Amino acid sequence: MLLVMLIPFLLLQAAVHASAVTPKSPAEIVAAAPASDWIEIAPDDLLVMQLAPVRDAKARRVVIQLMPAPFSQSWIANIRTLAKAHWWDGTSVNRVQDNYVVQWGDATEKKPLPAGLGKTDQNEYERRLNDDQMRQWSDWTAALTAKRRERARDDAPYPDSYAMFTGFLAGFPSALEPRVNLRGAFVGWPVHCYGMVGVGRNLSPDAGNGAELYTVIGHAPRHLDRNIALVGRVVEGIEHLSSLPRGTGSLGFYERPEQRVPIVSIRLASELSEAERPQLQYLSTESASFAAYADARANRRDAFFIVPAGGADICNVPVPVRRKP
Amino acid sequence: MLLVMLIPFLLLQAAVHASAVTPKSPAEIVAAAPASDWIEIAPDDLLVMQLAPVRDAKARRVVIQLMPAPFSQSWIANIRTLAKAHWWDGTSVNRVQDNYVVQWGDATEKKPLPAGLGKTDQNEYERRLNDDQMRQWSDWTAALTAKRRERARDDAPYPDSYAMFTGFLAGFPSALEPRVNLRGAFVGWPVHCYGMVGVGRNLSPDAGNGAELYTVIGHAPRHLDRNIALVGRVVEGIEHLSSLPRGTGSLGFYERPEQRVPIVSIRLASELSEAERPQLQYLSTESASFAAYADARANRRDAFFIVPAGGADICNVPVPVRRKP
Repeated sequence: MLLVMLIPFLLLQAAVHASAVTPKSPAEIVAAAPASDWIEIAPDDLLVMQLAPVRDAKARRVVIQLMPAPFSQSWIANIRTLAKAHWWDGTSVNRVQDNYVVQWGDATEKKPLPAGLGKTDQNEYERRLNDDQMRQWSDWTAALTAKRRERARDDAPYPDSYAMFTGFLAGFPSALEPRVNLRGAFVGWPVHCYGMVGVGRNLSPDAGNGAELYTVIGHAPRHLDRNIALVGRVVEGIEHLSSLPRGTGSLGFYERPEQRVPIVSIRLASELSEAERPQLQYLSTESASFAAYADARANRRDAFFIVPAGGADICNVPVPVRRKP
Repeated sequence: MLLVMLIPFLLLQAAVHASAVTPKSPAEIVAAAPASDWIEIAPDDLLVMQLAPVRDAKARRVVIQLMPAPFSQSWIANIRTLAKAHWWDGTSVNRVQDNYVVQWGDATEKKPLPAGLGKTDQNEYERRLNDDQMRQWSDWTAALTAKRRERARDDAPYPDSYAMFTGFLAGFPSALEPRVNLRGAFVGWPVHCYGMVGVGRNLSPDAGNGAELYTVIGHAPRHLDRNIALVGRVVEGIEHLSSLPRGTGSLGFYERPEQRVPIVSIRLASELSEAERPQLQYLSTESASFAAYADARANRRDAFFIVPAGGADICNVPVPVRRKP
C-alpha cells in the first residue's frame, strides 16, 4: 500500500538492521524510553469529558491534562471548582471552526455559576520565571540552532516565528523572553499548539472565568499566545472533537440548537472510581529520551526521509503521552 | 540580492502604515481589496472531487487548486491525465489520521493506470528559481523581522523554523534558500501548510505518480517539505475531509472497507459545464492588499488582541480565496 509515512517499512528496517547503527525514528525513541522517564499525571490534574454517544458509535470520552504551576493557576482553580460542582453537565459543544478551535460551555449564557470562583487577570497570561523554573526549562532550541548553522549557514539564534525562545516547562510547550524592564529577567508563557485547551473570554480586560473552554484543532494559532489563558491540553480522545461537523454560523458556531453536541459530564479524574480513572503518563521533557525524541523530530533520519529539516517548530514536537503500562 | 528584494517591500510597508489610521483586521483588509488584486483560477487548474453524500447531508464537494509553474509540474501533468481518464471515479478516501493527513486513491492497488503518465523525479521537490521567479517571490519575512527586532531585540534574519526564507510564489506558500554549490543561486520549494495537497509515494527513489493524494488536516508537517511532492491546495470544502471519522488502523487507515468514503468523481473544472464550474479567485500575493493582510496577520491590532505577536509563520498567513463576486 502506498503510504505518506511508512511506519511498517520502518519496523521492517528495524527488524532487518536491529544490530546496525540505523538512526531511530521518534516513535522508536519513545518506545525505548525507560520507565523512569515517564511521569504519571495526577488524577486531580485530569478532566474527563463525556460527550453524548452518537447512534452508531461507542462512548466519546475526551481527557484533558490541566497545566501545573507556574502558568494559569487562577483559571485552573476555577476549572476544578466548576468540575466539582458538575457545572458542565448538560452544557454542550457549541462551536467547531475548521482549522481553528472547538469550543464548549453554556450556550444559553444563563446558567448560574457555582460559588467560589476567583478573579482572573490578563496580566497572568505570562509569568516571570524563577531560577528553578529556568533550570527546568529545556532549551532544545539551542541544539537545533547549532545544527541549523551547520546546514544553512544561518546565524539566527532561534528558530521560532513568534518568540525569542521556545521549549518545555513541566511538560508543556512554552515560550521565553528576557524583559529589559525586569533587569533582563525572563518571562514565560504557554503556547497554542494543536490540542491545547484555553479559556474563552470577552474583550479585554475580561480574562474569562474558565467556564467557556476551547481546544485547538488546526494549525497552531500562535497569535493567540499571551492574549488568552491556556490551561491544559487534550491527552486522549481529541478525535471526538476534531472530527465534529463544522459549524456554519459566524466563527463556526452551530446555527441550530440541535446541532450542538451534548456534554453528559465533565469530572476531575479524582472524583471518578479507580476503575474509571484514566491512567496516563507523559514523557518527562527534562529527560534524555525527550531530548533525543525532539532531535529526531527535527532531523528525520528514518528510511522515508531524504532531507532532514534541520529544525522543528515547538508545536511539531508534541509531548508523548501514553496509558500506564 | 535579498536587500534589493527588501527595499520595495519596506516602501510598501511605509505606505500601508501612513494611510492606516484605524487598525484593520485581516478580514477587513481582504474585504477592501480592489477587484484588480484578485486573480481568477483557470478551470484547468481546478480539480473538483465529489464524495458520496452522507444520509443527512447535501453533496460533499472538495475543490483543489493545482500549483502553477515552477514547482511539481511533472506530477501535475499526471494528475490532469488521471482526471481526464476519470481514473479516481469509484476510488475512495482510505486514510484519516488526526492532526496529520487525509489520503485518497485506489485502496485495491490493482486498478490499471491510464496511458500517458510521465516519469517523476525526487530531484524536482525543489527548483532553482530564475530572475523572474525571484522577483515574484514576495519577501514578507524581511519586513516581519524588522518589526521583531524592534519588539524583541532579536537579530534573527528570518522567523521560520524550517527554512532560511519563506514567502509566496505565484500565490503559493514556499521556502527559499541560497545554494553554495550553485554559486549562491536560490532554490525554492512549496511548503506543507494546512490544506496543501501532496503525492503519496513509496521509499525513495520512488516519487509517486500522482494517483495517490493526500491533504494536510492538522498542524503544518513541515518536516515533509522537500521529501514529497506538493501539487496544490484545497480551496473549498476541506471540511468534508477534515471532519471525517479518524481511521483506527495503523497511520489512520480505515480498518474495514465499508469505512472508506467513496469518491464519486474527480474532474478538472474545464471538463465540467459552465454552471458546474467553481468560479474562484485568490488574492494576488504580489499585491499591496496581500502585504497589508500578511502584516495584519502577524500583528493583530483588532479589538480582541492585547499583544500583537510581531511575527507569523508562513502557514498562519493562508492565501485568501473567494468565489467570484
